[in-house]
Amino acid sequence: MDYFDVVVSLKGIIATRNAADYAVIEKRAHPADIAGALAQHPARDQSLVLGMASPAARAEVFGYLDQDQQVRIAQHLDRRRLAELFLNMSSDERADLYNRLSDDQRDTIMPALAQVEREDIRQLAAYPEKTVGSVMTSDYATLSPGLTAAEAIDELRRVAPDTETIYQAYVIDKGRRLIGVISLRELILADPTARIGDLMKPSPVWISASAPREEAVHLIAKYDLLAVPVINGGNMLVGIVTYDDAMDVEQAETDTDFRKVGAVSELGRGLKEASITLLYRKRVFWLVLLVFGNLFSGAGIAYFEDTILAYVALVFFLPLLVDSGGNAGSQSATLMVRALATGDVVLKDWASMLGRELIVAGLLGATMALAVSGLGLWRGGPEIALVVALSMQIVVIVGSLIGMSLPFVLSRLKMDPATASAPLITSIADATGVVIYFAIATTVLGLPEVGS
Amino acid sequence: MDYFDVVVSLKGIIATRNAADYAVIEKRAHPADIAGALAQHPARDQSLVLGMASPAARAEVFGYLDQDQQVRIAQHLDRRRLAELFLNMSSDERADLYNRLSDDQRDTIMPALAQVEREDIRQLAAYPEKTVGSVMTSDYATLSPGLTAAEAIDELRRVAPDTETIYQAYVIDKGRRLIGVISLRELILADPTARIGDLMKPSPVWISASAPREEAVHLIAKYDLLAVPVINGGNMLVGIVTYDDAMDVEQAETDTDFRKVGAVSELGRGLKEASITLLYRKRVFWLVLLVFGNLFSGAGIAYFEDTILAYVALVFFLPLLVDSGGNAGSQSATLMVRALATGDVVLKDWASMLGRELIVAGLLGATMALAVSGLGLWRGGPEIALVVALSMQIVVIVGSLIGMSLPFVLSRLKMDPATASAPLITSIADATGVVIYFAIATTVLGLPEVGS
Repeated sequence: MDYFDVVVSLKGIIATRNAADYAVIEKRAHPADIAGALAQHPARDQSLVLGMASPAARAEVFGYLDQDQQVRIAQHLDRRRLAELFLNMSSDERADLYNRLSDDQRDTIMPALAQVEREDIRQLAAYPEKTVGSVMTSDYATLSPGLTAAEAIDELRRVAPDTETIYQAYVIDKGRRLIGVISLRELILADPTARIGDLMKPSPVWISASAPREEAVHLIAKYDLLAVPVINGGNMLVGIVTYDDAMDVEQAETDTDFRKVGAVSELGRGLKEASITLLYRKRVFWLVLLVFGNLFSGAGIAYFEDTILAYVALVFFLPLLVDSGGNAGSQSATLMVRALATGDVVLKDWASMLGRELIVAGLLGATMALAVSGLGLWRGGPEIALVVALSMQIVVIVGSLIGMSLPFVLSRLKMDPATASAPLITSIADATGVVIYFAIATTVLGLPEVGS
Repeated sequence: MDYFDVVVSLKGIIATRNAADYAVIEKRAHPADIAGALAQHPARDQSLVLGMASPAARAEVFGYLDQDQQVRIAQHLDRRRLAELFLNMSSDERADLYNRLSDDQRDTIMPALAQVEREDIRQLAAYPEKTVGSVMTSDYATLSPGLTAAEAIDELRRVAPDTETIYQAYVIDKGRRLIGVISLRELILADPTARIGDLMKPSPVWISASAPREEAVHLIAKYDLLAVPVINGGNMLVGIVTYDDAMDVEQAETDTDFRKVGAVSELGRGLKEASITLLYRKRVFWLVLLVFGNLFSGAGIAYFEDTILAYVALVFFLPLLVDSGGNAGSQSATLMVRALATGDVVLKDWASMLGRELIVAGLLGATMALAVSGLGLWRGGPEIALVVALSMQIVVIVGSLIGMSLPFVLSRLKMDPATASAPLITSIADATGVVIYFAIATTVLGLPEVGS
């Protein structure tokens, strides 16, 4: 049953309130498709449809809805229903939902849950946003090293309904410290009487619960893991991050980086769904800020007004020169933001990257100076050509260094380097470009400065 | 054994040529770490170390090296060794390597392989780059619907050494057509005597081998799959794309999009590893192209020289106005490039997106016009204020529309929308901004145009 069929069937089910038809969808369609189709209906109809689902399937479809919708539906559910939903949701999604409920809703739901569930929710919900702890799940399978392979498979079969994956099991000692991992594949290939302690891979890859969540994504991608185990301050195993949650994190991080590079703040949803007022709000801040940033360029120009009046041909090259600095700078910034985000470059590389960038920018500047000097000759004669070529060389080097350094500086200040957006770099490079250009012009062409 | 230990041990092993020490690393370190440490040594030492490895482990480490290094090492291996390596590599990595070997090397290796391997390599290597076929593997597990659950588990155990995953098995009919999927989890939870045909999930998610590879990533992320099955033109199952390969594709696509948005062509490797000449080559093309693109701005300015000489205060606002158009445009372009890349927006949405963008840009322009009119009043009086505010309003709308439309146009022309880079948008928006600004100025301030 493909997505289109689900959309059509769901419309019918909402119209007729026929629960038997829903059972057919539930059996034949993917929960992600049911959630996708459901997302287009109002919250009242959504809770109606979810009421028809079996408890486990309901939690699964609910988990695929976006968080705003989850909260809205939760408001339509009575205490018993909400408690049942909480019980069936995966532990990480449940903790995220809990964090978005009102205090009233939390007070309603918590007493309806067993002690162990309450503890689990409180613990997972306590990790700060964007940490590994905030995306991990506590539904993982553990084994003790003394079990045989056959016993371990039985154990995994027993816990399967309550774990996100049984394909990786984590071997722990009596103090819940992680001592090894073993995959179900290894287990079913092993001699059934062999001990887990001998079969397991010791000293596995792990991550701390307080690390940034992107690091879990890096580890999973680098080592091709199904999940990475998470350790707390006391070296105890407290959760796992699965590959599918890692893919969602990666997607979210990439979206964020892109928006920041484009100087748009987080939309929180798809471009198509975003309302006009949301788009306006998310874009206006940077644009207006950059207007005022640009005043420095203007001030530079005002300062050199006499030079401009004497050589109006200089204005001809103004957009070209300031843009070239900005373009070279946004190239460096883009490369650097991405390299910092993927961990390819780290903070301490700054000095060595600076040296390389200086050489690359020098070569780029020389090439562009050559290209532009011909134009200068044609437009304004040899003196203008000299001014333009010299300015181009310096403007490109300065722009590149700004573009390269700003992401490092932001990173150092514990800010997201992606905030070094192309528009910001352009504006900064513009202001310096204007000053460099007219200062060189005034020097070479020998004009008096304003006020002298 | 962590990465740092591996680096140190490997240096020792290369110095002493002690194969027993390598056996320790092989057992205790992750192949990705061994490959990472190995990458820092010359190809001759790399083949020396790989020669110490057991055949299966060797292929695994080799698979984690980047493709340039794989090709260089392959040149150091004799025919027997290379054939053995080919036999042990996963089918997708093997086909990629095959595509990068010289004709001579291909002719050497192919006769040393069995017929079935040769066929597999030829088939996989034939898919065009960036299609699903080019990233899929043919090492997957199939089951026939008549097997019982217990028989199916035995079958998976049997094929485990040669398949990338046994956690998902694909149920096929006699014509190799995909009729269902079943997970190992479901199999071990099922009644051992139940039939696969009854247990399997019918009509599973699938993808065509000729589809763009990003679509496989979308499906895997959307439906939380371990792997997506791949179908050829005749509806036959021909391979699977696993989640770990999907994560690599996602990473590569994101890097490409970022570089394009920053107007840098594909580096093919990390920023830190890239040589200075490579960086120069990859960046110079766009920068020089944009120099010539910027001539249009210059020409616009030359045309309105008289206006500038009469009102030199106009130059004060020049960088501000042209930048604002470029900034608004690169915001729209960034949002649109990303939305097209993730499939959030498709080509046919152009008209409706245009309408929304017009409204958003109108509001943004009005806000910025208001901000800048105060400056105009202060710098040049009410007439200049009017000119600047009016220009700002129009420049922002035009810039946004260019930024929003260019990715669509490129997409329509079957070019990558990410080529609508911020620098390109800025340059186009600049040229139009200059003309708009001075045309409005000339009209409002009532100056004669050049040549009249």
